[in-house]
Amino acid sequence: MKIPPVKGTRDFYPELMRVRNFIIDGWKAVSLRNGFEEYDGPIFELLKMYQIKSGDEIAEQLFNLVDRGGRELAIRPEITPTLARMVNQQINSLPRPIKWFSVPRLCRAERPQKGRLREFFQWNVDIIGVDDVLADAEVIFTAVDYLREVGLKEGDILVKISSRKMLAEILLSIGVGQEQFDSVYAVLDKRSKMPAEAFEEMLVGCISDSGKRAKVIEVMAVESLEQISSIIEVDEKLTTAIDEVQRLFELLSVMGIAEFCQFDIGIVRGLAYYTGIVYEIYDKKAELRAIGGGGRYDNLLKQFGGPDVTATGFGMGDCVLGILLEEKGLLKAASVGGAIDYFVAYADGQYQNKAVEITAKLRGKGLKVNFSYKGGNLGKQLKQASSQGAGASIIVGQEIENGQLAVKDMHSGEQKVVGVEEFWASL
Amino acid sequence: MKIPPVKGTRDFYPELMRVRNFIIDGWKAVSLRNGFEEYDGPIFELLKMYQIKSGDEIAEQLFNLVDRGGRELAIRPEITPTLARMVNQQINSLPRPIKWFSVPRLCRAERPQKGRLREFFQWNVDIIGVDDVLADAEVIFTAVDYLREVGLKEGDILVKISSRKMLAEILLSIGVGQEQFDSVYAVLDKRSKMPAEAFEEMLVGCISDSGKRAKVIEVMAVESLEQISSIIEVDEKLTTAIDEVQRLFELLSVMGIAEFCQFDIGIVRGLAYYTGIVYEIYDKKAELRAIGGGGRYDNLLKQFGGPDVTATGFGMGDCVLGILLEEKGLLKAASVGGAIDYFVAYADGQYQNKAVEITAKLRGKGLKVNFSYKGGNLGKQLKQASSQGAGASIIVGQEIENGQLAVKDMHSGEQKVVGVEEFWASL
Repeated sequence: MKIPPVKGTRDFYPELMRVRNFIIDGWKAVSLRNGFEEYDGPIFELLKMYQIKSGDEIAEQLFNLVDRGGRELAIRPEITPTLARMVNQQINSLPRPIKWFSVPRLCRAERPQKGRLREFFQWNVDIIGVDDVLADAEVIFTAVDYLREVGLKEGDILVKISSRKMLAEILLSIGVGQEQFDSVYAVLDKRSKMPAEAFEEMLVGCISDSGKRAKVIEVMAVESLEQISSIIEVDEKLTTAIDEVQRLFELLSVMGIAEFCQFDIGIVRGLAYYTGIVYEIYDKKAELRAIGGGGRYDNLLKQFGGPDVTATGFGMGDCVLGILLEEKGLLKAASVGGAIDYFVAYADGQYQNKAVEITAKLRGKGLKVNFSYKGGNLGKQLKQASSQGAGASIIVGQEIENGQLAVKDMHSGEQKVVGVEEFWASL
Repeated sequence: MKIPPVKGTRDFYPELMRVRNFIIDGWKAVSLRNGFEEYDGPIFELLKMYQIKSGDEIAEQLFNLVDRGGRELAIRPEITPTLARMVNQQINSLPRPIKWFSVPRLCRAERPQKGRLREFFQWNVDIIGVDDVLADAEVIFTAVDYLREVGLKEGDILVKISSRKMLAEILLSIGVGQEQFDSVYAVLDKRSKMPAEAFEEMLVGCISDSGKRAKVIEVMAVESLEQISSIIEVDEKLTTAIDEVQRLFELLSVMGIAEFCQFDIGIVRGLAYYTGIVYEIYDKKAELRAIGGGGRYDNLLKQFGGPDVTATGFGMGDCVLGILLEEKGLLKAASVGGAIDYFVAYADGQYQNKAVEITAKLRGKGLKVNFSYKGGNLGKQLKQASSQGAGASIIVGQEIENGQLAVKDMHSGEQKVVGVEEFWASL
């Protein structure tokens, strides 16, 4: 009976698995060199954990299950609630700042489309316990450090940055009340994805006053921090928020990644939980969905029953990133299997045991080795060695009776007979 | 609001995560050097896929879910059905033999107990398309190659080996009918876990003839292959099956792992799908559950709608293995965090930008580097550097005005002032 895979999931055959490993190993290495430590949580959590952060509607996007004890669970759609839970559990014993990263497998019950699957991997990098915008700069640097590491250039990607704190002060200055913020954020977040008229129409739904609406539209069109003060009144709190964004850009410049970063007041992030700097990473041609995004979320730990400790971080999925890397030709080397060190061939079935013995011994020494199961024609065996990219082939033949092996360099084609002892000593 | 984790799952705080990585990275490295390629499938599959291999009862041990399209899914409790599905999908284009491994995260809705959790990782190693017992020997070698690699010795672990093909011929020779095999296997599999009387009583349930029962009990007590012929009649088919087991032990000896392996007729493996060599790996004191186990399963691909292609492989979970490695003191080094290469300190707040710049540049060069967020007292910063195991500290101070840095070797304590250019050139 033939059973198909589930729609929106991937089968990682060896070639695709190598690509996945290339992406994930890079995430891990860059996280470590930036001083982050790896953590992970369970693949499922209690359903209500996700509802705390994202409201009851989130249940619609989850793969829910009920365990034998009748507990409502969900496969994790994100790892941030798990992070908040784990940090809160050990808040008093964890040395701060907490610089953690993770590469969770996540599932969302969405309609699969380009760059969006129902199962994917997401790099998460977070700093907990540092108020300073320096922490925001550091996580942005870590993202760019990785993207550069895999071969992307200034011309390929752009981190678009703004501040929710600043946006809040702007809205207050215009006269939009705090109680309207969540709905206004949701609309502003969609601005770049729709025609201007459609956006303005949506805005009517949450800001009834046309004068205020006009101001919001005007301010959402600024291209620099400096322009803001020419449109609205800038009070002390707004000044502080703008200064913070300016300080962030100064740090990004000091870190050598200014060319990858741009102020963009249109970056709002839909989620209610952001409280400061927010950003999204795009391919520069803006043809794909966001590669990643994040920001400061100072209230989450508290929301999860913990203390008032600040946090900032980002997430980057493997799907859109994979499409971009593929387009740029940066996955070619990764998709090819690693070569083997040795292939062990044998001239006759009677030498099979000897070939097996040598193979086992070489592997035990950490070398990557294959051998022929069937033996037979030596030319065919050496062809197999070539196709596996063997650096050298060992041929077990009659010489073994005199304690000797033939070793063939598969690059130069040179073949020489060496003593068995000599061979092992040469490794 | 505080939410607890789900029972039977683990939170991988950095220390435990390092241990998990140590175990899994070792699995991966040893698989690759033994010529296996990595694959993976989705975390969930259609529920019926698991029922094909293990019957409807398996649903009781699964975490089931229903997606929005009404499809019945299950979080994978094992990866072998996925392997069969994936291989069948591309059977005509995959070069054979197929030597694949995977390290899936698996979930089983069981009662958590020592060495058995509801979520765990399992190393799977399989060879598809090789009938020869050489393939069975190779996967057993791969398992032992790993266990040796992480530091376990002959005195620590034992691979107990038998053959289902041989057992089938023995039962036929005694006069037990093929239709009784599944129930007899299930009882024989439990033999070592219960008192002799309880075992004999259970056997009554599936073999009514007391003479046959006595023969079965007698043969299940043999300690070597040679003893079998002294108890029952050995026909040609049984001879072939015994010869195969003998050849396996010869190969394991040639591979240099004879000391880790032992014939044990009591190894049956409960699952119906095994067809040849079967084995389980135990700690030598037999105090824990099996560390791993496997065998030949020649009919699975066919059962999943594919061609008649043979297969052999094993699985090894991370829970029992972790307990054994912990007991043997082999996880100590792994649980400690890796040291950083540099810590960048600064004598005064005005040098923070410079410290950030140096940190970013070092990280971009692949070095593992941390810096102080707050600056302040230099002694405190260097203490932080020490606690992170920094190889060296860079101190940015007044010298920077003359293009110089202080570099302190954290092992020798030696500190010297070097030119910035010189420093970068020295890396």
